[in-house]
Amino acid sequence: MTTPTRRELANAIRFLAIDAVQAVNSGHPGMPMGMADIAEVLWRDHLSFNPANPKWWNRDRFVLSNGHGSMLQYALLYLTGYDLSIDDIRQFRQFGSKTPGHPENYETTGIETTTGPLGQGFANAVGMALAEKLLAQRFNREGHDIVDHRTWVFMGDGCMMEGISHEAASLAGTWKLDKLVAFWDDNHISIDGNTDGWFTDDTPARFEAYGWKVIRGVNGQDPVEIETAINTARAVTDKPVLICCRTTIGFGSPHKAGKESSHGAPLGKDEVEATRQALNWPYAPFEIPAEIKQAWDAHEAGAQREADWNAAFAAYRAAFPQEAAELTRRMNGVLPSDFNTLANAYAAKLQVEGPVVASRKASQMAIEAFAPHLPELIGGSADLAHSNLTLWSGSKSVSTSDANANYIYSGVREFAMTAISNGLAVHGGFIPYDATFLVFSDYARNAVRMSALMGAHVIHVYTHDSIGLGEDGPTHQPIEHMASLRYIPHNDLWRPCDAVEAVVSWQAAIERMDGPSCLVFSRQNLAPQPRDAAQVAAIRRGGYVLKDSVGVPELILIATGSEVGLAMDAAAQLGERVRVVSMPSTDVFDRQDAAYRESVLPNSVRKRVAIEAGISDFWRKYVGLDGAVIGMEGYGASAPADVLFKHFGFTVEHVVEAARALG
Amino acid sequence: MTTPTRRELANAIRFLAIDAVQAVNSGHPGMPMGMADIAEVLWRDHLSFNPANPKWWNRDRFVLSNGHGSMLQYALLYLTGYDLSIDDIRQFRQFGSKTPGHPENYETTGIETTTGPLGQGFANAVGMALAEKLLAQRFNREGHDIVDHRTWVFMGDGCMMEGISHEAASLAGTWKLDKLVAFWDDNHISIDGNTDGWFTDDTPARFEAYGWKVIRGVNGQDPVEIETAINTARAVTDKPVLICCRTTIGFGSPHKAGKESSHGAPLGKDEVEATRQALNWPYAPFEIPAEIKQAWDAHEAGAQREADWNAAFAAYRAAFPQEAAELTRRMNGVLPSDFNTLANAYAAKLQVEGPVVASRKASQMAIEAFAPHLPELIGGSADLAHSNLTLWSGSKSVSTSDANANYIYSGVREFAMTAISNGLAVHGGFIPYDATFLVFSDYARNAVRMSALMGAHVIHVYTHDSIGLGEDGPTHQPIEHMASLRYIPHNDLWRPCDAVEAVVSWQAAIERMDGPSCLVFSRQNLAPQPRDAAQVAAIRRGGYVLKDSVGVPELILIATGSEVGLAMDAAAQLGERVRVVSMPSTDVFDRQDAAYRESVLPNSVRKRVAIEAGISDFWRKYVGLDGAVIGMEGYGASAPADVLFKHFGFTVEHVVEAARALG
Repeated sequence: MTTPTRRELANAIRFLAIDAVQAVNSGHPGMPMGMADIAEVLWRDHLSFNPANPKWWNRDRFVLSNGHGSMLQYALLYLTGYDLSIDDIRQFRQFGSKTPGHPENYETTGIETTTGPLGQGFANAVGMALAEKLLAQRFNREGHDIVDHRTWVFMGDGCMMEGISHEAASLAGTWKLDKLVAFWDDNHISIDGNTDGWFTDDTPARFEAYGWKVIRGVNGQDPVEIETAINTARAVTDKPVLICCRTTIGFGSPHKAGKESSHGAPLGKDEVEATRQALNWPYAPFEIPAEIKQAWDAHEAGAQREADWNAAFAAYRAAFPQEAAELTRRMNGVLPSDFNTLANAYAAKLQVEGPVVASRKASQMAIEAFAPHLPELIGGSADLAHSNLTLWSGSKSVSTSDANANYIYSGVREFAMTAISNGLAVHGGFIPYDATFLVFSDYARNAVRMSALMGAHVIHVYTHDSIGLGEDGPTHQPIEHMASLRYIPHNDLWRPCDAVEAVVSWQAAIERMDGPSCLVFSRQNLAPQPRDAAQVAAIRRGGYVLKDSVGVPELILIATGSEVGLAMDAAAQLGERVRVVSMPSTDVFDRQDAAYRESVLPNSVRKRVAIEAGISDFWRKYVGLDGAVIGMEGYGASAPADVLFKHFGFTVEHVVEAARALG
Repeated sequence: MTTPTRRELANAIRFLAIDAVQAVNSGHPGMPMGMADIAEVLWRDHLSFNPANPKWWNRDRFVLSNGHGSMLQYALLYLTGYDLSIDDIRQFRQFGSKTPGHPENYETTGIETTTGPLGQGFANAVGMALAEKLLAQRFNREGHDIVDHRTWVFMGDGCMMEGISHEAASLAGTWKLDKLVAFWDDNHISIDGNTDGWFTDDTPARFEAYGWKVIRGVNGQDPVEIETAINTARAVTDKPVLICCRTTIGFGSPHKAGKESSHGAPLGKDEVEATRQALNWPYAPFEIPAEIKQAWDAHEAGAQREADWNAAFAAYRAAFPQEAAELTRRMNGVLPSDFNTLANAYAAKLQVEGPVVASRKASQMAIEAFAPHLPELIGGSADLAHSNLTLWSGSKSVSTSDANANYIYSGVREFAMTAISNGLAVHGGFIPYDATFLVFSDYARNAVRMSALMGAHVIHVYTHDSIGLGEDGPTHQPIEHMASLRYIPHNDLWRPCDAVEAVVSWQAAIERMDGPSCLVFSRQNLAPQPRDAAQVAAIRRGGYVLKDSVGVPELILIATGSEVGLAMDAAAQLGERVRVVSMPSTDVFDRQDAAYRESVLPNSVRKRVAIEAGISDFWRKYVGLDGAVIGMEGYGASAPADVLFKHFGFTVEHVVEAARALG
């Protein structure tokens, strides 16, 4: 072989995908075959990365939003020299491998974000590009463009059809994220066949309507056209860019190219052979000729890129030592060293002061107290700033070029807001928070799940946590939402009962580096609860004895949020043998050791009443078959909150009655 | 007063809204004040309805997608003469009133669909317009346009920002729903203020990209411009129409017009007074002068419209008696009289035949068996037809003009698909089903909730129900989803264990006229279970004894879906004192009387093991603190299904071990 042609280099991707899918009889060959030429031009000529150091800060970010085409990305990681071997590729989609069915950033080095749920990778990429823009605003100095990288994203027709593509593209346009470049794999095929029957949008016109630069009609199988388009995109300095690439799904397959049959199933033995012949690829499965592997290898170029940047960063550090140290701290995801002390002190102070405030207000107090010391905190609300109370005195819109821009006006776009938070978090340099009414966590639900699956350090703030929302009625009153969010694995939900618990929940969320937290706050005022210092410290255990019984408890009342005060009042009537447990986070409580859990909820005490203005059945986990739950069994109603709490049985009388009925 | 001016008529809406909100100190005056002029022209000159018979089939449908402006709609219902009194309006947002915070179709006559969660009303309207189109295709005859009505929808900036607006508008464009007219309340204000900072889309261009006719730049405060725009819209015969109305939120308020302060709070006593003066409205709160009420009253016009249609329908019935009877049956929501018998017979037949199939395949068999007898069944999948198995031999795309068009290719648009189902259901004439992978119910979650809240007769089909999905991995493997869907009040979830339970779940969903069902099916094959006739009948009770113990049970195994077979195998090893309960629908089981529930799960038997490849904690409700659950505690993984079931403990050995560990 002489110098490999671009087509041959792209074919290396194609056959790694074809052969891996065929070998394990599972997977999606069509997309990698269609997008291989685009990937070859992008990854070999434009993408700035160092395979030997996948975490190099200033690398370009690459996102495969159409994540079912994961073999494309695995092929690229292998060919360019990341820590991914040909044996890893042979283990495609097998248990414990580094090559799962969809790209998972927590399993595979070099994957920036977990994709597969369509459209979300695109929104993650918007978050990454926003992170880069803001870090550059904050840290770059004249002659020191120390933060300077692009975000490239591949997306398919499915991503384009999803609603989140609208929300995310709209925000990217508003924010003029000119270092974001999206490639649309316009292959006219989705799983159900030719998209004529269900996808007739003029997508280029749509993106122009969002304020994007759109490069139309690029032949996605022609490296020259792709190269030209990318160069055009790189020259754009005032808006994000969509490159519309007309491609053929399953390119090279004589009988399946251009057909949905190449999308999500192996080509089949005969068709693999036919494709080998058609593309003139005489090599065995998983065999990549040395010349081709060599031409792909990016170690040298990557080392050079990082070395150049390291030199630039050294110059920056010399000129701006404080900024360099701060940027390093933030990119390493290390909290300011005094944060823990500061947060503990603030909680202790509030315990003394005992303000009577809504927990949403206490949340704002926490933000106001913490944010000045935590410049990586960035966030906002889906058009409910004054309801969610997410603004603080230092808030500056990310639409501005302010060095301290830190507030995201997301508009009414809960799903993209949340997926953008995920993108900010996995980019690094930020701890994002987002906010809406708890009931509208539904709109963002799969992005919350993705926060948890990825272990992304994101804080979801959900206010108006129950029928306490009042007059807006059942469409706006969460019932099943807390239970449903708690059931998302690796997601921590907190529902504080007063200002102190609210502040501690914020502290816990900020200090939880390896996963998301949902902070659930009330609309209405909540009375402060008495605690000694040990009890304040115990809040962090998720559940603790707020008021203990005299002697072994005969009865335990378990409550969260606005119902803790109710439990305390009922306990006062029920006598001295009653224990009250405040359980702001069942997720965190369940992670405590068995001895602690037993100390709070002794197994022998079976007279238990759980009280929460949410779906009752969740609490059977703590009260069993013999306890009682005072919760919601159906939808709320439109009325003032106090009327509703009374109507639905959240009264001292009802709690007392239920407890006494246990015998 | 002489003949009232159009502005005076519109002001009647404005002041009903202003005064109701002020009186109860809660609500959203700004939108009704801004859209009153549009509503006046539409409702007085164009909307075809009869206030004396709000259920008249051929009425136009009106949807308030920006549902927070509910007082606009209540004012219209009151003024035109629906069964809604001025006292009802005085009770705005109060407990038990007919005027809740957001429009609720199950509370208030004349409300077509429940709105408030933004963007969904618009998608509901797309479903209604599709229903009209398809009923017209099916039933109209030359000279007999017996189905002939329009769908009108008001939407705000919030609806436009939501992703679902993209999905729904795209489908409406593809389907060329020319009798759908949307009014965009382009007031440039959302809750966080002037939308410049977060909403910079060129919305008219975006809708043109979807294939809509867009009427730009209409002054939404000018009845002449509005009238012209509506007439233009009515003349369009090949695409849906968006009328872009530039309005002023809080129009008429001297100090709050054009400001977000008028959006979601009372104007305040002084500003109400100032607005009265500015708009020259000297009347007391809740006083509507007789001339104005008279000019609004639609009884006469409505009666005439319906009488004309009744005459036309009588002629149609004379000419096409069978079609008339069938249309009447469908619009009345009555199942074919032989459906129950037919479905029971099919279940009995499958019990005898005992096919070994995936439950998704059994679902398709049920559709194939039922659909020919159930022409109102309409549905499809979000681009997963061959995975969800939603196509049957009689499927015909709704994109066609076929009289029997019944299949919806939704593309990758789970949220709009589901909200469109809701629209089809509340329109009447159809029983819609929609489908995606269970994990992507997340994308549609709030629309599933709206199905349940409204009591809409919709069937949500979710396949690939667990780690049994296999290689696609954790992004595609549902864990918490079944529990979370069960917790949505009034939603029935079924997870059948074999073909017979699958068919019965379909039957139950079809016969459940007053609410939705989620049918959850496996990707992998499931073995048939033995049952006598009484057991087949008991499936409809949601949970039943599939294999009983000899004598009083010492141990009860409870399982669903693919884990029922596992429970049966484990029971065989555990001895004759073990009962196996199949629990395909916990929701339905929980509704059974106490005696039945006790007969299946005797309170005295506390050695219980629940087995389900979903989040464990849900099952504490049935096994209490002393039982065991074999379920999922975290995310799945990418691997073949059999490897995963073994890895995560879904083996006979593990069930036996867990049961024996109970002592």
